[in-house]
Amino acid sequence: MTQDMKVFENLESVVRSYVRSFPTIFTKAKGYKMWDENGKEYIDFFAGAGALNYGHNDQKMKEKLVEYIMSDGITHSLDMASTAKAEFLNKFNDVILKPRNLDYKIMFPGPTGTNTVESALKLARKVTGRTDVISFTNGFHGMTIGSLSVTGNSMKRKGAGIPLQNTVTMPYDNYVDNHDTLEYVERFLEDSGSGVAIPAAMIVETVQGEGGINAARFEWLRKLESICKRWGILLIIDDVQAGVGRTGTFFSFERAGIKPDIICMSKSLSGYGLPFAVTLIRPDLDIWTPGEHNGTFRGNNHAFITAAASLDYWKDDTFEKEVQAKSEMIYQFLTKMVETYPELKGEVRGRGFMVGIASEVDGLSNKISAKAFELGLIMETAGPKDEVFKLFPPLTISEEGLKKGFEIIEESIKSLVKEPVTN
Amino acid sequence: MTQDMKVFENLESVVRSYVRSFPTIFTKAKGYKMWDENGKEYIDFFAGAGALNYGHNDQKMKEKLVEYIMSDGITHSLDMASTAKAEFLNKFNDVILKPRNLDYKIMFPGPTGTNTVESALKLARKVTGRTDVISFTNGFHGMTIGSLSVTGNSMKRKGAGIPLQNTVTMPYDNYVDNHDTLEYVERFLEDSGSGVAIPAAMIVETVQGEGGINAARFEWLRKLESICKRWGILLIIDDVQAGVGRTGTFFSFERAGIKPDIICMSKSLSGYGLPFAVTLIRPDLDIWTPGEHNGTFRGNNHAFITAAASLDYWKDDTFEKEVQAKSEMIYQFLTKMVETYPELKGEVRGRGFMVGIASEVDGLSNKISAKAFELGLIMETAGPKDEVFKLFPPLTISEEGLKKGFEIIEESIKSLVKEPVTN
Amino acid sequence: MTQDMKVFENLESVVRSYVRSFPTIFTKAKGYKMWDENGKEYIDFFAGAGALNYGHNDQKMKEKLVEYIMSDGITHSLDMASTAKAEFLNKFNDVILKPRNLDYKIMFPGPTGTNTVESALKLARKVTGRTDVISFTNGFHGMTIGSLSVTGNSMKRKGAGIPLQNTVTMPYDNYVDNHDTLEYVERFLEDSGSGVAIPAAMIVETVQGEGGINAARFEWLRKLESICKRWGILLIIDDVQAGVGRTGTFFSFERAGIKPDIICMSKSLSGYGLPFAVTLIRPDLDIWTPGEHNGTFRGNNHAFITAAASLDYWKDDTFEKEVQAKSEMIYQFLTKMVETYPELKGEVRGRGFMVGIASEVDGLSNKISAKAFELGLIMETAGPKDEVFKLFPPLTISEEGLKKGFEIIEESIKSLVKEPVTN
Amino acid sequence: MTQDMKVFENLESVVRSYVRSFPTIFTKAKGYKMWDENGKEYIDFFAGAGALNYGHNDQKMKEKLVEYIMSDGITHSLDMASTAKAEFLNKFNDVILKPRNLDYKIMFPGPTGTNTVESALKLARKVTGRTDVISFTNGFHGMTIGSLSVTGNSMKRKGAGIPLQNTVTMPYDNYVDNHDTLEYVERFLEDSGSGVAIPAAMIVETVQGEGGINAARFEWLRKLESICKRWGILLIIDDVQAGVGRTGTFFSFERAGIKPDIICMSKSLSGYGLPFAVTLIRPDLDIWTPGEHNGTFRGNNHAFITAAASLDYWKDDTFEKEVQAKSEMIYQFLTKMVETYPELKGEVRGRGFMVGIASEVDGLSNKISAKAFELGLIMETAGPKDEVFKLFPPLTISEEGLKKGFEIIEESIKSLVKEPVTN
Repeated sequence: MTQDMKVFENLESVVRSYVRSFPTIFTKAKGYKMWDENGKEYIDFFAGAGALNYGHNDQKMKEKLVEYIMSDGITHSLDMASTAKAEFLNKFNDVILKPRNLDYKIMFPGPTGTNTVESALKLARKVTGRTDVISFTNGFHGMTIGSLSVTGNSMKRKGAGIPLQNTVTMPYDNYVDNHDTLEYVERFLEDSGSGVAIPAAMIVETVQGEGGINAARFEWLRKLESICKRWGILLIIDDVQAGVGRTGTFFSFERAGIKPDIICMSKSLSGYGLPFAVTLIRPDLDIWTPGEHNGTFRGNNHAFITAAASLDYWKDDTFEKEVQAKSEMIYQFLTKMVETYPELKGEVRGRGFMVGIASEVDGLSNKISAKAFELGLIMETAGPKDEVFKLFPPLTISEEGLKKGFEIIEESIKSLVKEPVTN
Repeated sequence: MTQDMKVFENLESVVRSYVRSFPTIFTKAKGYKMWDENGKEYIDFFAGAGALNYGHNDQKMKEKLVEYIMSDGITHSLDMASTAKAEFLNKFNDVILKPRNLDYKIMFPGPTGTNTVESALKLARKVTGRTDVISFTNGFHGMTIGSLSVTGNSMKRKGAGIPLQNTVTMPYDNYVDNHDTLEYVERFLEDSGSGVAIPAAMIVETVQGEGGINAARFEWLRKLESICKRWGILLIIDDVQAGVGRTGTFFSFERAGIKPDIICMSKSLSGYGLPFAVTLIRPDLDIWTPGEHNGTFRGNNHAFITAAASLDYWKDDTFEKEVQAKSEMIYQFLTKMVETYPELKGEVRGRGFMVGIASEVDGLSNKISAKAFELGLIMETAGPKDEVFKLFPPLTISEEGLKKGFEIIEESIKSLVKEPVTN
Repeated sequence: MTQDMKVFENLESVVRSYVRSFPTIFTKAKGYKMWDENGKEYIDFFAGAGALNYGHNDQKMKEKLVEYIMSDGITHSLDMASTAKAEFLNKFNDVILKPRNLDYKIMFPGPTGTNTVESALKLARKVTGRTDVISFTNGFHGMTIGSLSVTGNSMKRKGAGIPLQNTVTMPYDNYVDNHDTLEYVERFLEDSGSGVAIPAAMIVETVQGEGGINAARFEWLRKLESICKRWGILLIIDDVQAGVGRTGTFFSFERAGIKPDIICMSKSLSGYGLPFAVTLIRPDLDIWTPGEHNGTFRGNNHAFITAAASLDYWKDDTFEKEVQAKSEMIYQFLTKMVETYPELKGEVRGRGFMVGIASEVDGLSNKISAKAFELGLIMETAGPKDEVFKLFPPLTISEEGLKKGFEIIEESIKSLVKEPVTN
Repeated sequence: MTQDMKVFENLESVVRSYVRSFPTIFTKAKGYKMWDENGKEYIDFFAGAGALNYGHNDQKMKEKLVEYIMSDGITHSLDMASTAKAEFLNKFNDVILKPRNLDYKIMFPGPTGTNTVESALKLARKVTGRTDVISFTNGFHGMTIGSLSVTGNSMKRKGAGIPLQNTVTMPYDNYVDNHDTLEYVERFLEDSGSGVAIPAAMIVETVQGEGGINAARFEWLRKLESICKRWGILLIIDDVQAGVGRTGTFFSFERAGIKPDIICMSKSLSGYGLPFAVTLIRPDLDIWTPGEHNGTFRGNNHAFITAAASLDYWKDDTFEKEVQAKSEMIYQFLTKMVETYPELKGEVRGRGFMVGIASEVDGLSNKISAKAFELGLIMETAGPKDEVFKLFPPLTISEEGLKKGFEIIEESIKSLVKEPVTN
């Protein structure tokens, strides 16, 4: 039965958002492609905002999942023990943690990004006995009150309807031209008259997705880690969007050489787009009272199954190398765009498969994204003024897929900068 | 491969909780039964804390789900339009809302109970421009900071690590002997010197699950609704645990004859135990800015599929009548227990399939639950001191299943009250 | 030079308030009398809202003060040592504390009621490590954010412009008909699921002045003290308005037989109407860091001089007995009024010299107060709806003065209830 | 009777502070001199932390005050009208406001600095409907919760016992070397993703007293004002310490050429060291509800009398010029000290009579201050580490008095830097 878009207007809350940018009814998807009810094919450079790093409906995961369902495997288990959960734990330890010399305890905080962030903030406050958390300009960490308190976006903050408390925002890397923003952070911390208390934690994304594809320099991250160490502040890396290979390594901070105290993961972790999240905790910080943080869907066993299957991508470095090679292609394409189309007033931003072009021309990125959709490419915008169009293809995309996407983007740009851009 | 329980101790955070009460590795489940890795069979009177009202791995839903997965249907769609989502919306409207003369707008706030509660609180504050929310003693609404602020449990509140704000707790029905608790509520509201401001909303469960199986009288709920109307306060019913048939009707408040302004639903809504939640909003209150509340897993299409399938149970009143008939059996069993075993010092509590016995004997309910587990029955305790053992079978359980469960419970009680109870 | 009332309209902020009820320019005052610029004489049944318990410009204090000024005694000393301060400390100890077997440490928190309340709240939180404070309906403790958080009046609370936090309001004695309000308080405290944490302190007035002249029964106060002891909660008595003899004894709680942990005093403490306040602290709780709470006017030496002089009233029990005898006169007068004028629908409230009549007739108390002013009596109204006219004569008033005041009040009542009362 | 210092130890709270630095009992004071009980004379370079700008017991004010008291003038009037209040209002308008083309409404918020700050914050929030206030590093605004929230000192902030909320600290002028701190402020305000909302107000001192004698450049203040204008943010100047001539003009911001929306004044405003404060409000912002902010000691008539008398100093520019000339002497003296004694590692800071030397040598400033006290000079230290010794003589001090003070300071320095400085 083909549906009418009106159903959404009639029955769904006005809060719906992406459906406004991509106004069609999707019905099927595979790899880097999606199809709508009219049979139109789309190349997906959005990838569920980072939740589909392995593309849609990965064949191997699908087989495992269907087999599991067919066998009446446990579907929902809260935080009871299940075979599927045990297998995920073991495999995550064997494939991800051990080879990286990491020994984090794994917490299932509820199956979404905001759940893992809330659990991280709670634990950091419990461990340190302090209340404040430092977050960074244009950080995005989620929509529940705890996570929203560390999120920068003013529209979303206002949505809280209450003042957001117990947080201090500090400037992210490159926030003010020619200023070393960490000098500023340090000055506030070392001065006992600064009005800023030593916080329980700092929470930071290594590359800010929603905030406009801002990539912090590795050097900045290392200095941040050393500041945290100096003051006994816990370092929380929110790797919900940048993690699971999106920037080229499993954890986004690997090449920076830092070791966070707590790591938040979700989005692509299940591999298949199923709700799933973990909080990784430095073992000596794992001082929760049993049940102190709970939730109904901590035991989403379908996700355990697909997540375990997805870890096969990381058994050796083949996948990682492929991702890095294709990243290079993307980077070259974006650089070429900026050079070829000066009317874009564009700047290439990001790292790995988490990149985009920030255009100084008001509204242009949105127009490019809209045009691309017409031409069969799904691509989001980001940043406080939606000034960045954001390339987020699945990491598993083929070179051919990438190139087709590039063509559509270039065509979209061309069609918009040829004619005078007005608002 | 058979797993060892040690994996959980070694790799999972100490926050894990249910696994401590039910220490075995589950592997398979169907209807009201679960099996562990040793092949031991369990009767499930826990039902995922209310997330498995239709039992495990319902056959029809399973078929729909597998068929959908096999066809490469959209798995993850954020809040974009998909065929599966359209079908859920239409069916929910046709089967649930319309026949009850309801016209709520449907919001997908993220796939967990705490997501829907957070969205409800945010919207109530936005709509009214007020900051405070009144919640009730022993209410349970979730673990993220907004939801935790309206949750009563002190251990969980302390877990926040920060003072919880913008909320006022009022006494639930029957909270103080011989006092009409709503007189107390009204006095605070009508007195401009009371220190309690007119709140944005009141959030309440019609039967408190985690709080100890306290059922508010329908009369109390009606008076609460009229107080809300008098003062322009929004009434939010958190039907996450009591909804989807648990108390005998789809919405738990139907027989009270009230009409909430906002309804929070999750747990059994997907039918199959998959993460899923909706917030139902009185149409004129649906004033969100697009994207003002968002989240990665709002478009869990597997859950759309099973949720739509589950609604078949509600197409006519057959299922509802069956549930109510079996409720009567449960109620009679519990009454008999209290009478037969005065050593229990027990009180029957609850409504429908959300019932239990509160025992005044310190620690006894926990012992009964532990004994029952030994004997092959999964049954949780609840209440501030775990003083209630809680019968939460799937609504779809057969009479035979119920009776087998009853036998185990009686045997457990008998084994504990025969010998002198000591702590 | 005679001033014009216009200067206040032209130059002073609209926040001014009492000048609207008593619209004349006062120029001189002595004992229980005041005179305005036109030479009109007023009997003062207001006494600076309790700041002039010894009447205006007490002759002995005046002589001491002028002598001190003439000798160039230290006027302002912050918290440095001065002769005047030492004398006050010694005399307060000798005349007030020792004879009552009290050994409080004396803190000078800044010279106003709100300063002492803020210091008490801060100390209670520091000592206990808890954040919440329980206050009571219709309590009044001051206008700075800490004190305002424990004040009941909604208009004044809204004036904060921010949500007031870290406080819980509980019902004062007699708040809900036929409910023992301390049963509620205990229920909330003993139930770990109540949503109300064990607070750092409870702050309470023994008789609520601004809140409508509500006097808590001594029995209620004793039970409150025992609840505090049971739970390790500090008991703060705010004796700013009820203290210094206003209810018949120096401290308002003496006859209740309780012993608060912290006492807040101000208003009449200087004896002469000069800004002055102390916080009395149980010695083992006096764990401030030096300078942790400070303020410029903690060393108001003029007030030390008059306060020390005022303590002569308390050297033996003569004054106390006089006050209690005159209280009886006031009480009989009020009782007679209620009986003689049933149209008042009046209820006598209060204790000692802190009494009034609450009239159920909307607006009547304000009219009586306005009429009395015309006839030469200054008398305030109180309560959430200004429903109480409040007799607050100086404690030093003569019988003759009292009688003159009574005559004016009766005349005012008569003039208003003879003619039909309309609003 | 000569008192013993023990009385303070025995009876007064340990929170006392200045008495520890200046351990003697003062008994008499005149102009720039104080005497203790042993008859020892001190030169006062402390001036009540800025509350005694006209010196001790000014002869003219003293005469007016005694005359007023002798005539039984109103002492305490809440916010009723009195002759003394009318005279103050008129004279403040005639001598201060009108000649400077200012038309502020005058509010009496209670007689202390923290009262005026609290009233300013409340009004700014009410007027704008916003909750946040921006304050600056090392700002000092008072000890009640509202004022403490905008105060930088971490020891004092911790004293609150609760998280301080609804405020954001921004860097004061020169806070980070080579960073233009207002660039940060602007960047945060203009970026809708910064996490910092447009605040109700900014509150700032033109010269920070407690914070370490940091003087903001006039240019910085002007840019700050323009930022406030651009964003519709109210500019509150806290002139409690820097005002009333301390920096050379009546208001500290006059020479910067800015016009604040709200001004907080206290300390030297009464002229005589009596508790007194006003809040000056741009007329169109004066939207208080009558009584929305109140307090018992808003009508301290003794202070009205001396404050009115003190305004004679400002009737023409004689006094101002004298102050500025003597400022020059002080500045030259300090510069000489820094040059002559390089061991000080000193930096001259401040403006007008609000100056000092910041020494990089840990603990040295405290030692200099202690030595000076021995030698008969009262001089405080300031700054987060007490690194500044602070010259705060009365503005009325004679050249001879200044020179005597200078000699003692130089002798103190010399005695400490000659011998090796160790900690």
